[in-house]
Amino acid sequence: MKDPINLQAATKKLAELWSPRVIGELDDAYYVKIAKLEGELAWHSHENEDEMFLVIEGHLKIQMKDRMVELGPGEMYVVPKGVVHNPIAEEVCSVLVFEKKETRHMGEVENDRTRSIEEQLRPI
Amino acid sequence: MKDPINLQAATKKLAELWSPRVIGELDDAYYVKIAKLEGELAWHSHENEDEMFLVIEGHLKIQMKDRMVELGPGEMYVVPKGVVHNPIAEEVCSVLVFEKKETRHMGEVENDRTRSIEEQLRPI
Repeated sequence: MKDPINLQAATKKLAELWSPRVIGELDDAYYVKIAKLEGELAWHSHENEDEMFLVIEGHLKIQMKDRMVELGPGEMYVVPKGVVHNPIAEEVCSVLVFEKKETRHMGEVENDRTRSIEEQLRPI
Repeated sequence: MKDPINLQAATKKLAELWSPRVIGELDDAYYVKIAKLEGELAWHSHENEDEMFLVIEGHLKIQMKDRMVELGPGEMYVVPKGVVHNPIAEEVCSVLVFEKKETRHMGEVENDRTRSIEEQLRPI
């Protein structure tokens, strides 16, 4: 990342829902991603990686087996490794996500929303 | 982190300037910190670690030897490892910072603003 990134402006350029895009990286270890969400993704987990969500605009529910958290703009939550979760956005919502480079965004789930890391690395 | 964190509400509880506080962690590798800033910190670098800044409220300038970036609310920038930098807030500003657990917040600089990791880990 050479220049500062305005998160709201960057997410406005996202045409596709549930398609995370990499906007930065840290230490060759983590990707900083943004995504636009609406509806629900799928129950999945990341066995070896925590996942951090920070809501940029809108509201996100993160359903887990034993609880549900609700995030509004400027609110963050870390889903611990191994915890089965399902992100749900009742209306359009945009989020910043921190994931290890090796994290698969839907864990082991493969469906038409699954995006390869090459797709996530396309310039916005 | 057990519960969601509202970044604006959390930073309002910070009484002290330039005193980062840990609000979360990722994978036993990174700390998520918030800090309230006003004035300038000190020229320093982190030889082996990138450092990400995301402005929550106010404006932050990050002075580097060959350029200056200016961040407003919702704007982020990653200072690459080894790059000498000096954060400057002309008015009170709050930021979210991602740093490796081993990162010293002022690099090798020691002065009355240097905070130990134990101080940064105190509950807000």
